[in-house]
Amino acid sequence: MLCRICKDRGKRNKAVIFLRHHRLALCEKHFLEWFEKQVEKTIKKFRMFTRKETVLVAVSGGKDSLSLWKVLIALGYKTLGLHINLGIERWNYSKTSEEICREFAEKNGAELVVFSLKERFGFSIEEIAREARRKDVCSVCGTFKRYVMNLVAKERGINVIATGHNLDDEAALLLSNTMRWEIGYLGRQSPVLPEEAGFPKKVKPFAFQTEKETVSYAILNGIRFMETGCPNAKESTSKTFKRALAMIEHEMPGTKLRFYKEFLKKARPLFEKELKKELELRRCTECGMPTTQEICSVCSILKRVRENAKSRDN
Amino acid sequence: MLCRICKDRGKRNKAVIFLRHHRLALCEKHFLEWFEKQVEKTIKKFRMFTRKETVLVAVSGGKDSLSLWKVLIALGYKTLGLHINLGIERWNYSKTSEEICREFAEKNGAELVVFSLKERFGFSIEEIAREARRKDVCSVCGTFKRYVMNLVAKERGINVIATGHNLDDEAALLLSNTMRWEIGYLGRQSPVLPEEAGFPKKVKPFAFQTEKETVSYAILNGIRFMETGCPNAKESTSKTFKRALAMIEHEMPGTKLRFYKEFLKKARPLFEKELKKELELRRCTECGMPTTQEICSVCSILKRVRENAKSRDN
Repeated sequence: MLCRICKDRGKRNKAVIFLRHHRLALCEKHFLEWFEKQVEKTIKKFRMFTRKETVLVAVSGGKDSLSLWKVLIALGYKTLGLHINLGIERWNYSKTSEEICREFAEKNGAELVVFSLKERFGFSIEEIAREARRKDVCSVCGTFKRYVMNLVAKERGINVIATGHNLDDEAALLLSNTMRWEIGYLGRQSPVLPEEAGFPKKVKPFAFQTEKETVSYAILNGIRFMETGCPNAKESTSKTFKRALAMIEHEMPGTKLRFYKEFLKKARPLFEKELKKELELRRCTECGMPTTQEICSVCSILKRVRENAKSRDN
Repeated sequence: MLCRICKDRGKRNKAVIFLRHHRLALCEKHFLEWFEKQVEKTIKKFRMFTRKETVLVAVSGGKDSLSLWKVLIALGYKTLGLHINLGIERWNYSKTSEEICREFAEKNGAELVVFSLKERFGFSIEEIAREARRKDVCSVCGTFKRYVMNLVAKERGINVIATGHNLDDEAALLLSNTMRWEIGYLGRQSPVLPEEAGFPKKVKPFAFQTEKETVSYAILNGIRFMETGCPNAKESTSKTFKRALAMIEHEMPGTKLRFYKEFLKKARPLFEKELKKELELRRCTECGMPTTQEICSVCSILKRVRENAKSRDN
């Protein structure tokens, strides 16, 4: 297959990727150009951020988040990387993830903040989950990651946090919310969550790019990334929805993108109308971060963790 | 596995069916009872019809429609069966379908109307599609079947038409409408379409019963039904959605039923608000049936078919 853009210009270069849902075959150079242009379009269309502000890019060390950081640097945005070291020892998981992020930052002349749960809170995420008697590590981990992102943004005076969620993630989340008709979640699902109640804006510049695209962008740019998932990740429901969507996409190319785009255009506004008024937030009496209760969920988990650890050590 | 109802009564009868989404195992007697009770509940909940009115039951000869007719008779409703003979000769399809429906009517002492397209309009559905230069026989067939149901209901003074659509059909249709976010279709999808603009009420008493249940009901009642599908049916998009839902249901039992039920409860009302005002209908100048145009779509297709057939014969 030949690169379409080269062909239009009378050249015969082989394509390295075929984007079936766009019926578009591209060579390496034109794919990288096209991909960056698409991401720039999303950033502009949803008014995610400008070149004047610094964006906090949450990087796990995986293909999506490192590709995102790379694109934003290539497009000339001001970025600060944030890697959260969860303290997971199995498979050398957290150590390798941190190394990979540091390596990327150094190679790209970018600044990286590493936030270590163990150093800052005294416990790894697995210890926190265990001591808090929470079986589902993933849900506790999500709570802590959101908290740390907000905390670091606040400490650094940053107003926008970008994450590497791609179209496959977003469409699977949408299908999951739709299967339950969770009107509240449906009304809020968007590539942009505006700054509100003391929380910084959250943006997903890859919301319209498939996983195939983000992984190709990483590989073609020679980015080293974590290829194994977290050792705690179980066969999640999101994987079931991803598989179902992949099956539908295979029979009807373009369905996944249309499903998400048409949702944003036609359905989300109807669900948004149903959302309840913004919750009254106050400051956590422990850490000062916004919360609906007296103590935020991270501080209350940490309190329990410390009490349990102490009473056991005595 | 033992029948749960028998077990609750201290008996040990083997179950013939396990309904995973209800976590319910039942013996033959209790499955038939349970199934009929569920259908009765649906009829009552959605005020589909009463025992005073006659229901026109559209019967193709398949498991769903004949099971529906059987249940309605068993529950003591007044029914009239309507079989549309499409004139499909391949596999002896239409002839066998009609025979099966006639056999059912005779065995059950029920009245059946057979409407033959070939006799009434002069052409089989395949001839109609061909002469009208319509490649998609299924879509023309749908138009004609809806027309004939409305026509026979009108001729007989019947106000309710029941079809055998089951939960699998309804959930696949819902997923298909959701994938495109077709707000208009979503606002109208329901187990009951009220009588409006001269069209009789349309009801789906099997909307909450799975295909597994309807086929089991047919088999346990010794109903002979068509086991082959129509020779014109292609690998349809609805089959793709059925497969995707089956996959999700396998991993998360109960998802399909919840998807449909929660839609009716939480989402459909939001979509319904967006529906445009009822269309102004007038009478077709050819046949007198309600239509938005001067001539209804069936009469205009038939006109074209007759002209094409005539000009070719000359």
